Order: sequence, then C-alpha cells, then structure tokens
Amino acid sequence: MVEKVYGVGVGPGDKELLTLKAVKVLKKVERIFVPVSKEGRSSLAYYIVRDIVEGKPVEELLFPMIGDRERLKEYYQRAFDSVKSSEGEVAVITLGDPTLYSTFSYLWKLLKRNNIPVEIVNGVPSPVACAGRLNIPLVEGEEKLVILPRGEDLERYLGVFDTIVVMKTKRLGEILKRALNRGERDKYLIGIVSKGFWEDEKIQWGGIEDIDFQGINHYLSLAIIKRIKREDI
Amino acid sequence: MVEKVYGVGVGPGDKELLTLKAVKVLKKVERIFVPVSKEGRSSLAYYIVRDIVEGKPVEELLFPMIGDRERLKEYYQRAFDSVKSSEGEVAVITLGDPTLYSTFSYLWKLLKRNNIPVEIVNGVPSPVACAGRLNIPLVEGEEKLVILPRGEDLERYLGVFDTIVVMKTKRLGEILKRALNRGERDKYLIGIVSKGFWEDEKIQWGGIEDIDFQGINHYLSLAIIKRIKREDI
Repeated sequence: MVEKVYGVGVGPGDKELLTLKAVKVLKKVERIFVPVSKEGRSSLAYYIVRDIVEGKPVEELLFPMIGDRERLKEYYQRAFDSVKSSEGEVAVITLGDPTLYSTFSYLWKLLKRNNIPVEIVNGVPSPVACAGRLNIPLVEGEEKLVILPRGEDLERYLGVFDTIVVMKTKRLGEILKRALNRGERDKYLIGIVSKGFWEDEKIQWGGIEDIDFQGINHYLSLAIIKRIKREDI
Repeated sequence: MVEKVYGVGVGPGDKELLTLKAVKVLKKVERIFVPVSKEGRSSLAYYIVRDIVEGKPVEELLFPMIGDRERLKEYYQRAFDSVKSSEGEVAVITLGDPTLYSTFSYLWKLLKRNNIPVEIVNGVPSPVACAGRLNIPLVEGEEKLVILPRGEDLERYLGVFDTIVVMKTKRLGEILKRALNRGERDKYLIGIVSKGFWEDEKIQWGGIEDIDFQGINHYLSLAIIKRIKREDI
C-alpha cells in the first residue's frame, strides 16, 4: 500500500514557476500520477514536469468532464484505488495549486477518509499568475476579491467587489454585456489571459468593447474584472 | 537610472516554496530592495532569500504602517527614488505574491507611470499556503471564494460564499461571535494559521468555540472560514 501521497502544484504553465519543493518531491517519489480528462490526452501539468521526472513511472488518472455525479464517483474511486495500491511515496500533480479548484481535491477526500498521509506542495495559482502577466495588482490595500468558478451570476458581485476573477471564461462576453448597462461599461476594465505562459498565449486588457471574446481557448483562460477607481484615471 | 525592476514574490515563509524563477532572478540582479515597516526591523521576506543573495547589495525601503495617506505618499516617493536611481536590473522582494495585497503595488504604480519596465515573478500566496497547512482545499468544483483584507464586514459574506479568507485576523474572534448567532455557529469551520512554516507556527482548525483567538500573532495570521456541507459530515 502507498505510504504517502504528495499533492503537488506545478504552477500556471511556466516551467520556471515550479517551486524548489515541487522539484525535490517530484525527484524523490516512486511514481507520478497525472490527472487527465481524456485517455491519452496530453497533459499540460505533465508537460511542465516532464524533464524533471524523466525515466520515472508515470500513470494517468482519468477524471472526465461529465455532469453525472454517480459515474464521476466511480472514476474517483478507480483513481483512488490506483494511487492506494502503489508502493512507497507518490505524487499527484496538478496545474496551478492543489487547494484552488484542483482535480486533486476529489482524491484528497478519499485519501483522508482512508487515513493515507497527504502532504500538499503548493504551487503558484492561475489568478495571481494572470495578474502578473497583465502587469496589474489583483488587489491592494483595503480592496476585496471574489473568485468565481464561472461567471453565470457575475452581476451579483459587480459593484460589490473591487476585483472579480472568473476561472472559466466560456460565455463571459454574453454575461458581461447583459450584466453591464451601457452607462456602467466604462466603470470596469477587463483582463483576459488565454494559455498564459504558453507559446500561443493571448493577453487582452481593456474596456468591454475592446475585448475579443471569440477565438480564445476558454478552458485555459482566466478573466480579471476590475472596477476603475478615481485614482487610476 | 535603473533598467528593469523585478517584483519578486518569495512565497509564504518556507524557503523551499521559492520558485526556480525567483532564485534565478535574485541571483542575476544587481541589487535587492527589501520593504520594511520599521527601520532595522528584521524582514521575513529577506530571511527567506538571505542565503541566495549573499554578498549582494541589499537596501531597505521604508513603508511604515500609518494611516496618513499624504505622509505615506512621501515614503512611496522616497522608495521610488531609491529604486529609480539604482543601476542595471534590480529586484524588490515581497512575502507571498506581488499581486495580492503586496507592499510592492504602491511602488509598481510609480514605476509604471514613469515607464520603468517591471516584470512580476509570482510567488505562492498565503491563502493557498495556509489551506495546504490545514490540509483542506480552499475551494473546489462550483464553490465561490472571497478574500477580505480584514473581516469587519464579514457578516455580509457569511452564508453567501463557501469559503472566506480573512488576511488579517485582528479582532476576528469578536467579529465572528457577533456575526454568528448561536444556532449558526455549527454551520462553519474555522482554520487559523499563525506564523505558517516558521518554527513557532500555530495551526488551529475547528468550530468557533474551539479556536483560541488570543495569543496568536495577528500580523502573520490568516483565517479560512468554511461553510460545512452535508457531504462533509
């Protein structure tokens, strides 16, 4: 049976944003588990660590993107069984950080319930990385931040928070245009980083009319919506 | 005049949570600037990188914790002048990440206004690091997260968000006890990490009655408040 499981965040996409601890742990473990959404699909998380773990056994864990919770549970259980039945210390890698909307969280629960030791190795999460790419602070001083997995109910938070992060940008254009009346559109700036740090990275920053919501990879995009302050002008 | 300024996040306190990029940049720059709140006060950010930057010129930037905005602006201006008048490429270090409630943000504005090139080197921010220490996910699936600099108006967000992070825990005990009626107290779990990763780290996790709000270092503490879900029980 497995002795210990490291949940390792590999950061947002830049190999240099790996932590020293992630490198150390990935080098010492017996086996690397890589969550994938489809069998054989190339994993971005694995791409980041590929050179470091060369020659080490790598095993895919299948977490398909389906809505059916009962069927999903079967996949979690199967992933858990694979991890549990491995030897020594192992690592499960995840893009960004393991505590923030990570596929690792499902496995984490099963590991804890079965008293298998887990240690988290934090990574740089995508919201701060995207703010870095946009060359803007996410929040400062007394500002408040909200992070939404998707933006469907975005209008509840506009006007209340200084900064809103939307993790998945699918349909964000529609939602924003519906949520913001013409007079309000000037009050916000929107940053979208698509495929941050990758060769085909696309960075946009401007008013709602300036953003091209088409043609971005919505699965790997993140939006930062900032209320404009007087001092910014 | 300075050629380029790196805003470098050195992570939450564990030297191993530095990124490879932070190490590379800190080794190559001509000079390291360290924000401090009092002259001569030992800086935790500097402690993290001390071994890496050995022998390199290190200069303190004074950002006192005072409310007077006009006087503060003088300090920002003085810090900006020091950075601007240095030679070659330099780094300004900051605990956690430079985009999330960082002292760097004040300097950042002045640098951008003066067209001095800035590059952000992201670090692991404290909210995800504290979730890691508590061995809990911050958010998963469709959950929503709010991050507050302080908790004064915490009651507006309880019941609306799955997870609330409070960056500074001063008076949090009072605020939570006032905000939560007796019947509601069982609905939340509270995690407080004080001096995370340091030798005298203190980790607490439990119901509001279980937490010792006294005797923690409030400047270096962070609270995570989670609404209990049926599936957790």
